[in-house]
Amino acid sequence: MESVEQMEIVPGMDANQLVSTMEHCGFGAGRLAEAVSIYEEMLSGEYTRFFTLAGAMVPAGMRNIISGLIREGHIDVLVTTGANLVHDIIECFGHHRLGDPEAPDARLREDGLSRIYDVYLGDEEFVGLEELLQKILPERSETITGSKLLELLGSRLTDERSILRSAYDRKIPIFCPAISDSMIGLQAWLHRQTKNLSVDAFGDVDEIVELCYGVEKSGIVMIGGGVPKNFALQSMLVTPKSFDLAIQLTTDRPEFGGLSGATLSEAVSWGKVSSHARHVTVYSDATITLPIMVAAVLSRLQK
Amino acid sequence: MESVEQMEIVPGMDANQLVSTMEHCGFGAGRLAEAVSIYEEMLSGEYTRFFTLAGAMVPAGMRNIISGLIREGHIDVLVTTGANLVHDIIECFGHHRLGDPEAPDARLREDGLSRIYDVYLGDEEFVGLEELLQKILPERSETITGSKLLELLGSRLTDERSILRSAYDRKIPIFCPAISDSMIGLQAWLHRQTKNLSVDAFGDVDEIVELCYGVEKSGIVMIGGGVPKNFALQSMLVTPKSFDLAIQLTTDRPEFGGLSGATLSEAVSWGKVSSHARHVTVYSDATITLPIMVAAVLSRLQK
Amino acid sequence: MESVEQMEIVPGMDANQLVSTMEHCGFGAGRLAEAVSIYEEMLSGEYTRFFTLAGAMVPAGMRNIISGLIREGHIDVLVTTGANLVHDIIECFGHHRLGDPEAPDARLREDGLSRIYDVYLGDEEFVGLEELLQKILPERSETITGSKLLELLGSRLTDERSILRSAYDRKIPIFCPAISDSMIGLQAWLHRQTKNLSVDAFGDVDEIVELCYGVEKSGIVMIGGGVPKNFALQSMLVTPKSFDLAIQLTTDRPEFGGLSGATLSEAVSWGKVSSHARHVTVYSDATITLPIMVAAVLSRLQK
Amino acid sequence: MESVEQMEIVPGMDANQLVSTMEHCGFGAGRLAEAVSIYEEMLSGEYTRFFTLAGAMVPAGMRNIISGLIREGHIDVLVTTGANLVHDIIECFGHHRLGDPEAPDARLREDGLSRIYDVYLGDEEFVGLEELLQKILPERSETITGSKLLELLGSRLTDERSILRSAYDRKIPIFCPAISDSMIGLQAWLHRQTKNLSVDAFGDVDEIVELCYGVEKSGIVMIGGGVPKNFALQSMLVTPKSFDLAIQLTTDRPEFGGLSGATLSEAVSWGKVSSHARHVTVYSDATITLPIMVAAVLSRLQK
Repeated sequence: MESVEQMEIVPGMDANQLVSTMEHCGFGAGRLAEAVSIYEEMLSGEYTRFFTLAGAMVPAGMRNIISGLIREGHIDVLVTTGANLVHDIIECFGHHRLGDPEAPDARLREDGLSRIYDVYLGDEEFVGLEELLQKILPERSETITGSKLLELLGSRLTDERSILRSAYDRKIPIFCPAISDSMIGLQAWLHRQTKNLSVDAFGDVDEIVELCYGVEKSGIVMIGGGVPKNFALQSMLVTPKSFDLAIQLTTDRPEFGGLSGATLSEAVSWGKVSSHARHVTVYSDATITLPIMVAAVLSRLQK
Repeated sequence: MESVEQMEIVPGMDANQLVSTMEHCGFGAGRLAEAVSIYEEMLSGEYTRFFTLAGAMVPAGMRNIISGLIREGHIDVLVTTGANLVHDIIECFGHHRLGDPEAPDARLREDGLSRIYDVYLGDEEFVGLEELLQKILPERSETITGSKLLELLGSRLTDERSILRSAYDRKIPIFCPAISDSMIGLQAWLHRQTKNLSVDAFGDVDEIVELCYGVEKSGIVMIGGGVPKNFALQSMLVTPKSFDLAIQLTTDRPEFGGLSGATLSEAVSWGKVSSHARHVTVYSDATITLPIMVAAVLSRLQK
Repeated sequence: MESVEQMEIVPGMDANQLVSTMEHCGFGAGRLAEAVSIYEEMLSGEYTRFFTLAGAMVPAGMRNIISGLIREGHIDVLVTTGANLVHDIIECFGHHRLGDPEAPDARLREDGLSRIYDVYLGDEEFVGLEELLQKILPERSETITGSKLLELLGSRLTDERSILRSAYDRKIPIFCPAISDSMIGLQAWLHRQTKNLSVDAFGDVDEIVELCYGVEKSGIVMIGGGVPKNFALQSMLVTPKSFDLAIQLTTDRPEFGGLSGATLSEAVSWGKVSSHARHVTVYSDATITLPIMVAAVLSRLQK
Repeated sequence: MESVEQMEIVPGMDANQLVSTMEHCGFGAGRLAEAVSIYEEMLSGEYTRFFTLAGAMVPAGMRNIISGLIREGHIDVLVTTGANLVHDIIECFGHHRLGDPEAPDARLREDGLSRIYDVYLGDEEFVGLEELLQKILPERSETITGSKLLELLGSRLTDERSILRSAYDRKIPIFCPAISDSMIGLQAWLHRQTKNLSVDAFGDVDEIVELCYGVEKSGIVMIGGGVPKNFALQSMLVTPKSFDLAIQLTTDRPEFGGLSGATLSEAVSWGKVSSHARHVTVYSDATITLPIMVAAVLSRLQK
């Protein structure tokens, strides 16, 4: 059995050194170090890399980390929520703001501010979103898939830091199985009052299952749980394969039975994750652990 | 200011009496009592009642509570996850089982068992699900909405305790915005290899928004968060109205910014919940708080 | 393997019936039913019953549940925090009040209010506490143990619903290992400016260890974690025995390594809890689960 | 209002740069950046620095971070749990080990292993602890305070990385109000079967209150909650002063009313923390956030 090695902090140490000293620590520290080690293997080996993104990660400031990973070729398939894409589009022309999480919400409404914990959005951002989306939502006579719709939206955005645009540029698919559950869904409703736009609710399943059938070795990083986590895992389930590497950064917990908090070991019982897979869950705020993990891995890859 | 009144426990007290003694208590006890009081108002007044259901509530044993509320006329609109509907269908012919949450998952896979914390499902249940779904999934040349698909499925089930069947019998709509993210999605993929079935990804938005425009006073009960919570809240957001009564039973928390854990006060800043609304969040395992809340309210309504 | 049985809610059902229908449910519901079953065995069999109490349970309104259990003979040893005893004393002459958990705290201070989430205490309660404690804190030339000090305090209180008084009347010991970490500690500091009072920091260890050596079969209920949980568990650890029945109602979780959230299985590895013990942890707000558990068990005992 | 600035990750960035890019982010990232900023002010200004330590931080590998801070002069008063001191002593001669958090606990007991989540301790470490403590526990005819006892223990340890030894060398006091609730308490019980050792349960209150009266400006870092957090806060409460800077790294949450999860804003209502204080709570695993915070601050101080 390995001994715990007490961490040593040295001024000026970089993210990689910091994480490396966590390698022989218990609890979250050890798990974060394991996540970095698995991610290093995933990015340096021949793996198809899935990435799922839930939670308000773009409003919190994680957008460029995701689009950066896409542009660097570190993400092959992205599964995310409608909300993250909506906020990605807003960042193309506007801003999220930092505010008091304990401000009286009725007054915020009067002031035209919508709150996501300590991040605020002004009504003008939603006006801008409506203008932009009504301009770039496509008109199509034939029925398309959700991922095709997102590809079309990405092609109309000019901001290179955009997740949608970056995915378009790199030709990687974005799946958003609950796209109607977002401002995109509401804007589609408006758009369809006068124009044709038909998206096949099951079209993405065809595409991602085919994609899963085609992979050799695969790895997955899951930020939060929700629909993105389950959609990626269930798609692999249909095939004879399962994920070989898996990392989950989440604040949920298993005891209440929700899929978001389910352990990756539980996923092994379903056959979603291989019983031989390296996998780890870091129970912590992903706005803290994702940047560290990415900073540490990018440093390792450079060497 | 009101004083805390120390709870008194008397042998034989019913759920309503128990909750009533919590009314002047702090923390979760007081909040649960407030939830029951709001729910009593919702069910005894002229409210359109929304109910959102996330988390593995059917596998845990909450199915008959939900279908009972539907049959009693206490739910007008249900928004839920694909998983809960899948497990609802499985209960029509098979069983979930109770198991050890710490059993080795690789061995469970060998034994053909899939685990949801301490609930197990045998592979034969999935075989049965496939047989049943391939039989009852409709073949349609025209494109339908998700809620229409669920209505058709409900019409083909004979188990009166089924949520889908109960909704069909009572003519209430079920919305499942992420339906492709479930075994129904996977079975639809299989079905569509040989048959026609086209579901409009944005069709439910049209229906629920129209429904929201039509309501006078409205109340909402949210079990867990996820897509169901947001989809119901955002639909009301488009209209000039907002929810007048709101109850949330959740184990999530606000600090990490996810919508599942967002406070109902935060929803006020968006205009989803009225600034005059009575609302409360009970932070606790819903498999405990939902039964108590329902038992207490049904007792009150009987009086 | 046992099947999940879907819960049935009937208007008017009592706490015991409600919990009984949870017996074949998953997640928290099943665990709460198991806790009630273990508690029934503990109270109806020949067990020495330990009860540990952490968290602000008295301010929340749980005081009479605890003192009631003591008066009914259901607690043989109580281990608790200084804070719960302080609030127990305050309830002898004053009141806790219910308030807004989101009120601006700087203004509360100006108004002379101290906040415990949604429970407030006025400065006059602290003035009253000081007057009372300075009157009843004993003057002693010899060094006494902490439990002796608490017995002396209990003997001076006249409120029969008091935990301290109830324990005195029933001659059961209260251990409060961190007594200096409370207003009692601060008042002792004041008292000792002019009077003699010496409490032996290790005196309680002698007493509780001797007590543990003397028990045959034993059971423990732990509300929250903290010092009370550990002190009771470690005391049994020294003896050749271990707890035969154990129930934990907590909101903490194991992944972060704190003792409060540690599983009872972990306690088995230490030898604190027997490997043959029936034990269960209910992860939920104890202000909700404690009243239900007690109500259900008292009903069962009456039969 | 300030805009959210999307984080930029650059390979090779050091801990300080990483945290600096979090400064304009939401949720945990922004709070961690604020914690580092407050800590920088605390360590570079004229503050008396309190540090409270709960949770199994030494077993997890955080021991040298704490003793390093002491040796560098960054801690003036340490308040901690008995457990952390016990594990500090064990590290003087033995080792903690890393193990599977899901191993069967009954088998671990048979193998002589005690588990703290994923950290194991062998029985031989407890034998070594007993030998060492029985040798270095002092024999005294007069009654001493708890902090004096810890000073004496520290003087007998030779390991310079020890927290106890480092505090002794730097002449800073360690308070451990619940010292009897630990292996030290149990070893004291054994020791006192044959030798004199009397510790005054209220002696530390006299010392820390006097110390609090003497400070000018003060800051506090709280790792976890528990007795250490409350003991430090209540001691300042007695004086006309309050903490001017406060940082809390915790996984607890406020809704359940426990002091461990109480917000620092709540502490303002008590007068423990100044209404003008800079304060922040980072809700995350401290084995992750403490190393980053310390690494970032030490880099800043070097400049």
